[in-house]
Amino acid sequence: MSKTKKFLLSDQQMPTQWYNVVADMPNRPLPPLDPRTKQPVTKEQMCALFAEELMAQEMSVERFIDIPDQVQDLYKIWRPTPLVRAYGLEKALDTPAKIYFKNESVSPAGSHKPNSAIPQAYYNHKQGIKNLTTETGGGQWGSAIALACQLFGIDLKVYMVRVSYNQKPYRKLMMNAWGAEVIPSPSNTTQVGRSVLERDPDCSGSLGLAISEAVEVALRDPSTTKYCLGSVLNHVLLHQTVIGEEALLQMEMAGDKPDVVIGCFGGGSNFGGVAMPFLRGKLIRGENIRVVAVEPSSCPKLTRGTFQYDLGDTEGFTPLIPMYTLGHTFQPADIHAGGLRYHGAGAIVSQLLRDGLVEAQAVPQLETFAAGLIFARSEGIIPAPESTHAIAAAIREANQAKEEGRSRTILFNLSGHGMIDLYAYEQYFAGKLTNYDLPDQVISQSVDRLEKIIK
Amino acid sequence: MSKTKKFLLSDQQMPTQWYNVVADMPNRPLPPLDPRTKQPVTKEQMCALFAEELMAQEMSVERFIDIPDQVQDLYKIWRPTPLVRAYGLEKALDTPAKIYFKNESVSPAGSHKPNSAIPQAYYNHKQGIKNLTTETGGGQWGSAIALACQLFGIDLKVYMVRVSYNQKPYRKLMMNAWGAEVIPSPSNTTQVGRSVLERDPDCSGSLGLAISEAVEVALRDPSTTKYCLGSVLNHVLLHQTVIGEEALLQMEMAGDKPDVVIGCFGGGSNFGGVAMPFLRGKLIRGENIRVVAVEPSSCPKLTRGTFQYDLGDTEGFTPLIPMYTLGHTFQPADIHAGGLRYHGAGAIVSQLLRDGLVEAQAVPQLETFAAGLIFARSEGIIPAPESTHAIAAAIREANQAKEEGRSRTILFNLSGHGMIDLYAYEQYFAGKLTNYDLPDQVISQSVDRLEKIIK
Repeated sequence: MSKTKKFLLSDQQMPTQWYNVVADMPNRPLPPLDPRTKQPVTKEQMCALFAEELMAQEMSVERFIDIPDQVQDLYKIWRPTPLVRAYGLEKALDTPAKIYFKNESVSPAGSHKPNSAIPQAYYNHKQGIKNLTTETGGGQWGSAIALACQLFGIDLKVYMVRVSYNQKPYRKLMMNAWGAEVIPSPSNTTQVGRSVLERDPDCSGSLGLAISEAVEVALRDPSTTKYCLGSVLNHVLLHQTVIGEEALLQMEMAGDKPDVVIGCFGGGSNFGGVAMPFLRGKLIRGENIRVVAVEPSSCPKLTRGTFQYDLGDTEGFTPLIPMYTLGHTFQPADIHAGGLRYHGAGAIVSQLLRDGLVEAQAVPQLETFAAGLIFARSEGIIPAPESTHAIAAAIREANQAKEEGRSRTILFNLSGHGMIDLYAYEQYFAGKLTNYDLPDQVISQSVDRLEKIIK
Repeated sequence: MSKTKKFLLSDQQMPTQWYNVVADMPNRPLPPLDPRTKQPVTKEQMCALFAEELMAQEMSVERFIDIPDQVQDLYKIWRPTPLVRAYGLEKALDTPAKIYFKNESVSPAGSHKPNSAIPQAYYNHKQGIKNLTTETGGGQWGSAIALACQLFGIDLKVYMVRVSYNQKPYRKLMMNAWGAEVIPSPSNTTQVGRSVLERDPDCSGSLGLAISEAVEVALRDPSTTKYCLGSVLNHVLLHQTVIGEEALLQMEMAGDKPDVVIGCFGGGSNFGGVAMPFLRGKLIRGENIRVVAVEPSSCPKLTRGTFQYDLGDTEGFTPLIPMYTLGHTFQPADIHAGGLRYHGAGAIVSQLLRDGLVEAQAVPQLETFAAGLIFARSEGIIPAPESTHAIAAAIREANQAKEEGRSRTILFNLSGHGMIDLYAYEQYFAGKLTNYDLPDQVISQSVDRLEKIIK
């Protein structure tokens, strides 16, 4: 009989609660502030923009929060996802380490994003909301929320950064297939968009600008229309913990315990999703486990950023969030891991990093693609450019174990597949990618500018 | 507690044998013939081109054939695949029918094709073969065998029909990611290719021509190089029966029995893969079950073709195969279900159809895309254009059940996802697709021409 490769949970074994790490943090995250008054924003202020139950979750300190039955039913389209022992990768690396990965690429949208998109659509639907607006960069979040809105009969408008809209036609088509309207941003459908286009008719857009357009549209009729976001905020991280809760059960099935849990890091939802449930054992019982967030070296907010209050978008529409940040005017390089090109980290992970409870690593782009190819050629799955960051860090751990001549159990999250990102691999093969090394000066300039804006 | 949506088998429950329906057929398929002598081709003749164990399987009459351990290990990268109850689709159709689908889209290549690619690479590797050649149209087979060859360290050359090579850059990039060399056909790497290019430098290629180039290269050094094929032949259908063998166990888990099993039909590997294990009960125990092969109405070999000996390719390199055919010079319309654009049906399914043991249906292109969208919007998964044919037939069955006011249990095979085929959906949204209605005259002309070539 051959070895077990995949550890599967049945539909009945799917976790029925999300884990809210805030309940167990030694220092809870500082509250978000109103940029004008510098006072904590109220739930009422937030509810003008977001569904009420989502804001209740955003501010909750309960340890576990029930996953509604209808959300569980829809999760089951693809959840529980497999935990996989990466025998092929272990062999390719000739390492004594045991490597496991959680395969979030099996969702219909190809990434972990639907874990939060489904409940976000659910709570908005429950509140009677008929329209949602959102923004998307690379398109992972946009396609996930398009799927979710389709399943709940909500009309969705997605403002997609124009440069991505043009570069990634397949992502737009996925959203269309699920019935969403996709608008390249900047657009003439909003005041913000029109004023930008007046100044610069060829403007290729930015995530901050797309947020502004989506928010402007949502605020026009808050009784029927809300806005939603795919990362950074606490409730998004909360929903994603279903990943780690499953992985806890599956590692037990495998009769193993990870020494280190690894996730790529953009705003924190993917990393937090896999890592927080494992961190629980460390926070409550002092278990010896490392959790590692992996960011691109070209957008190194965790490893080279500053901890302070900063805005979530470039235009200044969001509250001030206590975060590790490169400054909200920081312009990340055009790396292919579009989901990791964000200037700041969510409040929960920022606080945990500050308290030394999570680790951070930065990996340069060329190392990530090399790692992605090793994985594709040994495990069969072509990973998303974002996920290759986690793979690269897992390979570093496995190589270190080899050097030290001892075993180590590694778990990483494969946040998505790279079927829609194959162009990035072509660029890699053609030798057209670089690491975008980032001088200290560029970072300090961006943060210095920030200090002047926010006291 | 909510309902079970997915019926999962563990790695340990994966079937360890393929099912060879030939053992149970009342009339076994007629033998393939040498086109020159009109005598049955020998195993030796076939082994000049194909690996020996594959040819032993091609001619085997054993009921069950063991799946080698190493193949089982690699199957476990994605197998067993889920059996899914399509509650969302049932609700969207408001039907009393119960609809299940087998989800083959979860493989790293996104389709069922690796089920045969892995064992084909394995047996070639076992025989010491260092190089394989093959052709691909839309790219599903090409990418599956690229993955398999990568896992066994075999160098692979894929001749990809030039029009697809240009239209589907992502498929080519998948093959590159798995280390295969992809050559647009016609090419100047073969005699056949050069002579075509001399006559027509802008020739956009055809599957038949690509086969000829791949075969020519393989025959240059038969001791180290072999050719391989992703459908039509008996051994390919054999490997695909792992689908149906799993589904048998999973339907039992669901406490249900299908009244009808449905698969889309190109050369027969996908349909045969899901259907043959269910047909076994009918052949051996006279069980009351229908198995339905679904083809595009623009390429209707099963529903409007002729049963006779015909060539497998347009150039005349293959043996004569006893098949339902539209004639090997039939030029199918440019439908997006590239995997179903083949003039003939494999020998096994052709014989079963002739004996009234399988049914066939033809569905026009617009109906298939409408069905695909209903599925994408109710079950979440965007299906491959090929798979939408099975969905369309399942919807027909479900609607009929509704009209008749009684239940029915339907199982269809979702052969692949449509992430790489989203352009086809865009064309559908833009109203640019047609049904390519096919006058009888066109078919009879193609078959008449055939009669003159082959007695």
